[in-house]
Amino acid sequence: MISKPYLLFLGDAKDDLAIKTAAGVNYWRPDWCIGQMSLPNAKSSLGLQEMNIEEAVKKGAKTFVIGVVNAGGIMPEEWKSIIINAISSGMNVASGMHTKLSSFSEIAEAAERNNVQLHDLRFSDKQFQTGKGVKRSGKRLLTVGTDCSVGKKYTALAIESAMQSNQIDASFKATGQTGILIAESGIAIDAVVSDFISGAVEWLSPDNDDNHWDIIEGQGSLFHPSFAGVSLGLLHGSQPDAFVVCHEPTRTNMRGVDTPLPSIREVIDQTIQNGKLTNKQIQCIGIALNTSNCQSEASDHKDRLSKEYGLPCLDPLQDSLDPFIQIIEKI
Amino acid sequence: MISKPYLLFLGDAKDDLAIKTAAGVNYWRPDWCIGQMSLPNAKSSLGLQEMNIEEAVKKGAKTFVIGVVNAGGIMPEEWKSIIINAISSGMNVASGMHTKLSSFSEIAEAAERNNVQLHDLRFSDKQFQTGKGVKRSGKRLLTVGTDCSVGKKYTALAIESAMQSNQIDASFKATGQTGILIAESGIAIDAVVSDFISGAVEWLSPDNDDNHWDIIEGQGSLFHPSFAGVSLGLLHGSQPDAFVVCHEPTRTNMRGVDTPLPSIREVIDQTIQNGKLTNKQIQCIGIALNTSNCQSEASDHKDRLSKEYGLPCLDPLQDSLDPFIQIIEKI
Repeated sequence: MISKPYLLFLGDAKDDLAIKTAAGVNYWRPDWCIGQMSLPNAKSSLGLQEMNIEEAVKKGAKTFVIGVVNAGGIMPEEWKSIIINAISSGMNVASGMHTKLSSFSEIAEAAERNNVQLHDLRFSDKQFQTGKGVKRSGKRLLTVGTDCSVGKKYTALAIESAMQSNQIDASFKATGQTGILIAESGIAIDAVVSDFISGAVEWLSPDNDDNHWDIIEGQGSLFHPSFAGVSLGLLHGSQPDAFVVCHEPTRTNMRGVDTPLPSIREVIDQTIQNGKLTNKQIQCIGIALNTSNCQSEASDHKDRLSKEYGLPCLDPLQDSLDPFIQIIEKI
Repeated sequence: MISKPYLLFLGDAKDDLAIKTAAGVNYWRPDWCIGQMSLPNAKSSLGLQEMNIEEAVKKGAKTFVIGVVNAGGIMPEEWKSIIINAISSGMNVASGMHTKLSSFSEIAEAAERNNVQLHDLRFSDKQFQTGKGVKRSGKRLLTVGTDCSVGKKYTALAIESAMQSNQIDASFKATGQTGILIAESGIAIDAVVSDFISGAVEWLSPDNDDNHWDIIEGQGSLFHPSFAGVSLGLLHGSQPDAFVVCHEPTRTNMRGVDTPLPSIREVIDQTIQNGKLTNKQIQCIGIALNTSNCQSEASDHKDRLSKEYGLPCLDPLQDSLDPFIQIIEKI
């Protein structure tokens, strides 16, 4: 467990996607977030009260959360001294970086000296097995996407919430660092050694009651040339009964590469084709549309896609998810 | 570089597949292998001279190669003392295990004391980038499979050799520990953090001369519920112009799981469908049949499959690969 409340560090975020970890925690767990700390050249903000480490500690902040991606995976020297300052002021530190906080000797020594905890969200002490592909009891829903960063985590959390409101036994299962911060458990699947991708998901979503649903956070896209291997192992390990395709209708290229976005049809067909390997009953129950960049045409997009695919098309942050729930209840 | 010659350790191998690392090195690099060392309950042998550590050192062995898989990924206590004995006798140690030799403090200390090298073939010091999916210069062939352990490495090595005999500029690219021992370079792709699968392959097979071929060793199968994520990332990172499907015709279930083997047709179709993401020109140039378990019906199998798929079907360890080369030369 990570001590709360949090000070969310936004660094010199170049855009909104760079602070998606901070934004996710602030959206889903606002009570845990006491303020934000940005560097002068930051281009993005959460609109929280801006505060430095001293002010945050005075207001009771217990953990310094690195809520921004470090470009190119390199930790800037400036961040290192800020982190050490936070530690020296008595805060724990939580990070979703690919490099362990404790691998920086000055940070490790400062944490030891000040008796605070370093939470490396991407790392697990668990030794995984390779996946077995055996059908497990209970039911599973996976959110998949036409791209990275289109709303797979938000959709899964919103579906969990809607199912619980409808008295359906459902648990969100986090597979990335932001989800882990929100759920306070999970596995950062992109940091698992690749031999164990599907095995780690089998561990994350074990046998359960027949009427229990695990709502598993998807990662990447089967069509993303950087991350499709992660997405496929996650699909096989999840063996979902149901999936929702998450889509951002203004996106043309996949994030970070020159590859064009696949169609929703291609994603549905490929997900069913691959997913059948571990669950013959797999079905698409709907489309989750991230309309944050197209508010005026949002309902046109939803109507068109809903008709085209014969499935409910909803924005999980705007619309009631009852149409999804009605399909889920029949599975 | 690993000092030669090698003593190949076979442990208490339960079957031939358990010693595939030792068998691969012995088959492709017989001059490097001075003998084998088995435990009394071993069920499999390479037919090399059996010797203990003392005898091997006397005959000039420089490296103790762990040529057998450790069941369940656990290093038996007995192995540890044998390894320390080899180190104390002055031998280096090479291992393809998922756990680093140096993570066992007694082994690390013995190596330090005796000034010998520990080669952990599955680990690389290289920091990879995520894959970019950008087309690189030069040409690439990938061996894919209907299952694990069907001959993808042997096929790639045999094709490299046949191409070189035909004056085609070709390099084998190892993606697993046995291939790395044989090629003395490469990346164990199943040990790479899953975010970097395709990126690691892009690094392994960079831009090259237009008429150069990288012959990339495949891993797993797109239809294997344990390893398909690795296979897909490897396919996207390899962006092959050509692929060969490797198949073992007596196999019914995929290795280690209850999943039935896919058909060769399914493997061809899925490989083309996924492979097009990073190379629209991808094509299947033939079938490599591992006939080691069906010698009497081997030519029937080959004739039938060749007719069914309209492609050459050859056993790379028995047949001339000229029919593959003739297609490759036209690409």
